[in-house]
Amino acid sequence: MQLVTEDNITELAAQRWASAHDPRTAEVMAALVRHLHAFAREVRLSEAEWMAAMRWLTETGRISNEKREEFILASDVLGLSMLVVQMNHAFDPKATPATVLGPFHIDGSPEKEFGGDMSDGLPGTPLYLTGTVRGLDGFPVVGAVLDVWQADEEGAYESQIPDVDEARLRAKYTSRADGTYCVRTIAPKGYSIPMDGPVGELVRGTDISHFRPAHVHFLINAAGYEPLITHLFEEGAQYLDSDVVFGTKQELVVAFEPRDPGPTPDGGESARPWLEARYEFVLQPV
Amino acid sequence: MQLVTEDNITELAAQRWASAHDPRTAEVMAALVRHLHAFAREVRLSEAEWMAAMRWLTETGRISNEKREEFILASDVLGLSMLVVQMNHAFDPKATPATVLGPFHIDGSPEKEFGGDMSDGLPGTPLYLTGTVRGLDGFPVVGAVLDVWQADEEGAYESQIPDVDEARLRAKYTSRADGTYCVRTIAPKGYSIPMDGPVGELVRGTDISHFRPAHVHFLINAAGYEPLITHLFEEGAQYLDSDVVFGTKQELVVAFEPRDPGPTPDGGESARPWLEARYEFVLQPV
Repeated sequence: MQLVTEDNITELAAQRWASAHDPRTAEVMAALVRHLHAFAREVRLSEAEWMAAMRWLTETGRISNEKREEFILASDVLGLSMLVVQMNHAFDPKATPATVLGPFHIDGSPEKEFGGDMSDGLPGTPLYLTGTVRGLDGFPVVGAVLDVWQADEEGAYESQIPDVDEARLRAKYTSRADGTYCVRTIAPKGYSIPMDGPVGELVRGTDISHFRPAHVHFLINAAGYEPLITHLFEEGAQYLDSDVVFGTKQELVVAFEPRDPGPTPDGGESARPWLEARYEFVLQPV
Repeated sequence: MQLVTEDNITELAAQRWASAHDPRTAEVMAALVRHLHAFAREVRLSEAEWMAAMRWLTETGRISNEKREEFILASDVLGLSMLVVQMNHAFDPKATPATVLGPFHIDGSPEKEFGGDMSDGLPGTPLYLTGTVRGLDGFPVVGAVLDVWQADEEGAYESQIPDVDEARLRAKYTSRADGTYCVRTIAPKGYSIPMDGPVGELVRGTDISHFRPAHVHFLINAAGYEPLITHLFEEGAQYLDSDVVFGTKQELVVAFEPRDPGPTPDGGESARPWLEARYEFVLQPV
């Protein structure tokens, strides 16, 4: 009989899971067993702590639904999401770096023209995000699709708001023949992650800031280039140094320059003061 | 600004979580971050795998309820539960070893006399579990409470059966002045873990046997001794070598000896053939 002991149980369990029929699953599961056991051994996990972990995991699953991804949030605040992004998008240092997708992207956003307004009359300071999409060689990329989304002035994404009929603060823009793009929206605000669930409960027991700095999300697809999932952050925004999901990168911080009423980058006019953020996206070739 | 990179994110995240106000939480969370990241780095976790993990964790929480503990099952099949048991119950080699509690224990079982029947007319071969509870010094332990539970002939525990009014295959027995105990029940059968959830889905992709060998659970409390959570396994039972939760230990395997109709250990008589299992529990002093 296989005599299970504290000394041999990790290898026994890893060997069992290495019997997975799919070789990659075998590799991942055996490694998971070894690292999970190494964690429990290092901290000498007590039975009460183990049971608390079981309760926490169960509650984290039970609070999740189509609009709330509490395990993704947990992965975000533990730095796991950003680690996975960085391992899988090790671009050239001159390319625009990737950051986390986050749990709020919605497929199928409506297409807008150059300078089309994705804020659709919502309150906020008008913001024009504009610039050129280029390859590493500096040449403009034509026909790149920029899928853009952000939170409103209250920090709420569309998927967090019940009964939204039309796309809200999300749209797709296409770069023109000269690679230029222009997104019209409102200035994003910093916001707190949801603090009313198991992740918030953990974070509250620490000195960790539970806020994200103001940002706009981009998912850029162009033929011949790696997809780019990233954000643009507002220069000088609060929480840039303490982003709770570790998503901030210096290369993604851009000035939101105040502009007087007058001509706007889409060829129109603003009767109100507005903000302009200029950013050159540089895509990594496939 | 804190520049997050693939190289520094693990230390940044571990340092943040080390700010937990409770020192033990700080230690556990910082270690969790380091080991979780080490796992992701070792296998170079892809984004698709990360997302599959998020889905699996969410589903595992969502299928759980008061009667089903899918995360405990996951911990069991990964060998984590048994590792935690062994780290926390490192008894003297002469003491009866501990094994997993499992998810099916119910508090408040009814008290039975010496030889009282906890199977209450359920189908099965009569089984008498009998012997003495002793300390490491060999002296009998009087007044030890043996909380006993097991599955029925179909492999179902009370908590898995809807609408059970009375305690079913569970009871508490007290050792007598000479340390002896006698449990009357039916012979347990081996059974499969629940295979219709996310854990079963993982196990099905491997060569892992999803069965547990036939066993009866004990939780023994006695003043002056460590609580003992353990099983007795039937000698020669199927799956002893491949217990899916790693719970089997040689010291916990006991012969279920066939006996002819006639006198039974409780001083009564059996009109049918019956089984006798004799076991000396040895408790670890506090």
